[in-house]
Amino acid sequence: MTNSSPGLSAASPLLPGKRLVIPADDPLPLDNGGTLGPVTIAYQTYGRLDERRANAVLVCHALTGDQYVAETHPITGKPGWWETLVGPGRVLDTDRFFIICANVVGGCMGTTGPKEIDPATGQPYGLSFPVITIGDMVRAQKHLIDSLGIDSLFCVVGGSMGGMQVLQWAAAYPDKVFAAMPIATAARHSAQNIAFHEVGRQAIMADPDWRGGAYLTEGTRPGRGLSVARMAAHITYLSETALHRKFGRNLQDREALSYGFDAEFQVESYLRHQGSTFIERFDANSYLYITRAMDYFDLARDFGGQLAHAFRGSKARFCVVSFTSDWLFPTSESRALVHALNAAAANVSFVEIPTDKGHDAFLLDEPELFKVLGGFVEGCAERRGLKR
Amino acid sequence: MTNSSPGLSAASPLLPGKRLVIPADDPLPLDNGGTLGPVTIAYQTYGRLDERRANAVLVCHALTGDQYVAETHPITGKPGWWETLVGPGRVLDTDRFFIICANVVGGCMGTTGPKEIDPATGQPYGLSFPVITIGDMVRAQKHLIDSLGIDSLFCVVGGSMGGMQVLQWAAAYPDKVFAAMPIATAARHSAQNIAFHEVGRQAIMADPDWRGGAYLTEGTRPGRGLSVARMAAHITYLSETALHRKFGRNLQDREALSYGFDAEFQVESYLRHQGSTFIERFDANSYLYITRAMDYFDLARDFGGQLAHAFRGSKARFCVVSFTSDWLFPTSESRALVHALNAAAANVSFVEIPTDKGHDAFLLDEPELFKVLGGFVEGCAERRGLKR
Repeated sequence: MTNSSPGLSAASPLLPGKRLVIPADDPLPLDNGGTLGPVTIAYQTYGRLDERRANAVLVCHALTGDQYVAETHPITGKPGWWETLVGPGRVLDTDRFFIICANVVGGCMGTTGPKEIDPATGQPYGLSFPVITIGDMVRAQKHLIDSLGIDSLFCVVGGSMGGMQVLQWAAAYPDKVFAAMPIATAARHSAQNIAFHEVGRQAIMADPDWRGGAYLTEGTRPGRGLSVARMAAHITYLSETALHRKFGRNLQDREALSYGFDAEFQVESYLRHQGSTFIERFDANSYLYITRAMDYFDLARDFGGQLAHAFRGSKARFCVVSFTSDWLFPTSESRALVHALNAAAANVSFVEIPTDKGHDAFLLDEPELFKVLGGFVEGCAERRGLKR
Repeated sequence: MTNSSPGLSAASPLLPGKRLVIPADDPLPLDNGGTLGPVTIAYQTYGRLDERRANAVLVCHALTGDQYVAETHPITGKPGWWETLVGPGRVLDTDRFFIICANVVGGCMGTTGPKEIDPATGQPYGLSFPVITIGDMVRAQKHLIDSLGIDSLFCVVGGSMGGMQVLQWAAAYPDKVFAAMPIATAARHSAQNIAFHEVGRQAIMADPDWRGGAYLTEGTRPGRGLSVARMAAHITYLSETALHRKFGRNLQDREALSYGFDAEFQVESYLRHQGSTFIERFDANSYLYITRAMDYFDLARDFGGQLAHAFRGSKARFCVVSFTSDWLFPTSESRALVHALNAAAANVSFVEIPTDKGHDAFLLDEPELFKVLGGFVEGCAERRGLKR
């Protein structure tokens, strides 16, 4: 399990798609006080930018997502991760909107992250990569949007960590966002969520093949640790009800109990599969850096402890969505966000969608989600004067 | 971290307390169809058995608990794990009742488990130890009760896995239990709970120092894996509210963010501490076996799929307790149990206690818990004709 990651190699030369490079002589400023450069941003676009450059939609991906939002994934061969929402005739209609999605800074799908080569040393960054934040990710995306000649985004949308980026965009660039759709997210990472992330990081760092982060240089892969991290995280993406309905106490490929430590129950087999497929497409150090960026997210802290102040200057219309069975980013977090938006006199609508699918509902076929987002997008497009 | 377990050694010769041996020539029958013998049962007692032998209370411990329920722990030096409930003047008054608590079969505090020496080989059992069940644990306890000359227990009480044993006692020995107090438990382990246990087991097995379970023979200890398992489990014992109140996003020993992977937040430092202290007192293979026993627990399965049938013959009075913020063994599980008890026309009272302390509430200073259990015990003692 440890040394087999056929699809994932340092520097990712074979990953298809577009690239922007932020040069070393004008590097990306970071929240930790340093800079990073050069920075390659790997991104995909779908649809066409209209003449007014007014129909651009930025999709922000979650912790283990990437830029392949609406096309077959080059490593897994699976459909894009948000094809339910993005595509011809979908809510984010690629015949109407210009969709942009970029791999985040710190990621492992072509954007500069800990597995890429540090030009200063000729070796993969590993742990010499700087700890980055949601703010840094969004600052890099702003470079991309500028380079595409887009002055103002029609919409910024994302779920989970993607939703954190949506909020960061609205706060950092209040004039640049016409509509914002933060889904299943929070304005700060909770103690429980930090705790779960810490378990995942400790699982990775406990793997001797992690080699203090230098596994790429030393020719190992901390696959066992990364797999355990993914398994623990995956439970938090579902709900107890969903797990019960899907698996219950059903046995895997057997009629009777075997009294052993094999994957006897279907839910065990499913989890092990989640772990073993994940390590084929994801870099362990990226997992450390991106979970850390989420832990650091606390939008109010950057605005004197008052979340409402983060949105004082924003001209965006907000559509906040949560799911009843999401216990990772529960509705209470969205409600706190909505209170702050109200206090900032922002234009906001808020919907809590009833579902038993848990946090992952934002990625699944959830008709009410599409209805809510579709109505909001339609109204905003009209106000923006976008053609049908 | 891996090789330092000063308090925990094979065969545990120094652990204080009482022992019963089930001999090899009359071994313990197991649910897997085999037998186990000899079996040493390490146990503690508090108080005195009365002349009628009618005042015996069996306390059943949870996953990582042990027999030192009401005295200083010989390894950690901490107070007994349930001194809030058991002791002079407490609900389970040691001046009035004869309290018995035994380390479960498969455990690591003196009772026969995977770290003890297999007399057939002269080596620690390791993975050659049979997979055991809650039923096996209770069958061993029955030997102990018989050996003490107790025909009928006044009360069986326990929380979490301890509560599973309480239910198993009532179902397997319907004439032997006068009062039963299953707390924060369930009549079967849920898919989500199996999933969390599987993550813990995978973390242990992923540690190269686990050595396929033969670490004692090979002179290693899978401390990193066991620590990760404990950290993941510990989160499930608390509630989001408790974590938020206790730690929030407070930083550990610093004023500003350090942008690194140290334990920057207090909640991380706390979790790491939970992991590192746990490995000083617990055996990794025991963790595998005991979590597996919980996963297998499904009382209805042994009674034709009808949970009510498990309690048809029971003469016990039941006091079922759950906690509002317990998401590991939520109130819905207790309610399902109560429905089955009602369907079996059992004598049952059920209380859901409001608290934000999560699953661990049963171990904490929770005045309403003591009030509920105290009233129940008092009423049952009167009916049993026990002296004040």
